[in-house]
Amino acid sequence: MSKNTRPLILVTNDDGMFAPGIKRLVEIARHMGEVIVVAPNSPQSAKGHAVTLADPIRLNQVDVFNGIEAYECSGTPVDCVKLAKNILLKNRKIDLCVSGINHGSNASINIIYSGTMSAAMEASIEGIHSIGFSLEDYAMDANFDPGTPWIRLIIEHVLSNGLADSKLLNVNIPHSSLGPIRGMKICRQAEGRWEEEFVEGVDPRGQKFYWLTGNFATNDTVEGTDISALREGFISIVPSSHDLTHHRAIPALKSLESIKHIV
Amino acid sequence: MSKNTRPLILVTNDDGMFAPGIKRLVEIARHMGEVIVVAPNSPQSAKGHAVTLADPIRLNQVDVFNGIEAYECSGTPVDCVKLAKNILLKNRKIDLCVSGINHGSNASINIIYSGTMSAAMEASIEGIHSIGFSLEDYAMDANFDPGTPWIRLIIEHVLSNGLADSKLLNVNIPHSSLGPIRGMKICRQAEGRWEEEFVEGVDPRGQKFYWLTGNFATNDTVEGTDISALREGFISIVPSSHDLTHHRAIPALKSLESIKHIV
Repeated sequence: MSKNTRPLILVTNDDGMFAPGIKRLVEIARHMGEVIVVAPNSPQSAKGHAVTLADPIRLNQVDVFNGIEAYECSGTPVDCVKLAKNILLKNRKIDLCVSGINHGSNASINIIYSGTMSAAMEASIEGIHSIGFSLEDYAMDANFDPGTPWIRLIIEHVLSNGLADSKLLNVNIPHSSLGPIRGMKICRQAEGRWEEEFVEGVDPRGQKFYWLTGNFATNDTVEGTDISALREGFISIVPSSHDLTHHRAIPALKSLESIKHIV
Repeated sequence: MSKNTRPLILVTNDDGMFAPGIKRLVEIARHMGEVIVVAPNSPQSAKGHAVTLADPIRLNQVDVFNGIEAYECSGTPVDCVKLAKNILLKNRKIDLCVSGINHGSNASINIIYSGTMSAAMEASIEGIHSIGFSLEDYAMDANFDPGTPWIRLIIEHVLSNGLADSKLLNVNIPHSSLGPIRGMKICRQAEGRWEEEFVEGVDPRGQKFYWLTGNFATNDTVEGTDISALREGFISIVPSSHDLTHHRAIPALKSLESIKHIV
């Protein structure tokens, strides 16, 4: 960005405009740059990297952040970023995208399901430095105070230093019940999965249905993982990438290249 | 799997049960194992890793594949895999999940948006060997014949040898207009992005809307990428992972760990 202008910061989330988490993130960001908010008009948790192709998308300007330019979007979190970049900020360079603060952890495998992190990743695919913030607390009245100065520090760090080799950070903040935040750990994503249960029921029209529920499970709690950092009361920061190649698996498959003809 | 039983193969996709691509994949798989099909009951392209949390999901057994057990699912491609594993195949080990054959390429960044690849990835998160197949042709009457023996060979390879260090393959087959398939290349995911345009319009009620369209763009066509392999007439195979950690970006961020208190 030019030395004479404030950085342009795009704020988004997956919980919508009225979630306390995005309100806090806007409050932090507005002191650090020019802020524009584009967030979904309905809850979009677990929407992953979904994009709306088969339907029109709408934008509706709203005044909920005391003078900050803000738009509700009828699409997914990824749609929000696409519309912000292509329609609302056409031709302007976005210096940073921040997504969240999510109500609930996006550590470990949750990065893949999360609308919050998918919005941040979409920005990073577009070459925009991007950070997703999540608090390990699903409650709508979750306490964002302990994490606030750390979020400010991380944003300042990225605005000042960039992200070198990376474009995307997955930042998770421990639940406030764990006591004062002990610092930050730069981590890898822990292995983990959801142990699903489906509640089975019958609807009023007599049709059977399944309703997804479950619990996150992991055994990968060694030092160096995001889950380990959070359990010890640290903020976890995982530099993340949209390159899904499993590079070290390439050599074992190379023998297939020798096959040139099959019948 | 036990030597005395046929491998159990889950087939899914994102285009739904009546797409020619899944029909071909079922035809291939039924000669190689016991097949169960669970596919969405509506088009689910570009749904990414979305999961249905806020609504009930329904399964409807259908007879479209000449005696093969098959279910339509009202949810996303990822929901299909979750229901197959947890409800339909409870307690049975799934030896392989195959997803597709998608009508359209899922090379490069498309792996992240694709419902086909997200279904395959969901299986891999569950520890199931998994392969997503896509043909570089969006047409519903695309020609799946040239790719068929290669798909059979890749499935046989994975059933016989497993996937060693990986659990997931992203397999793309070149458009038949490029001539005979020249073989297979083990690749990394090319860098790429969608150059979006939004068609702007006004609906019959006078409300403005945006409709997403665009073109895939990449400059990363060097040898070793999936895009390069496809352009040269080879099938691209990218071993892929749900670990999104950008490992080599960790050291540059380590200095943040020295900050222990902030005000």
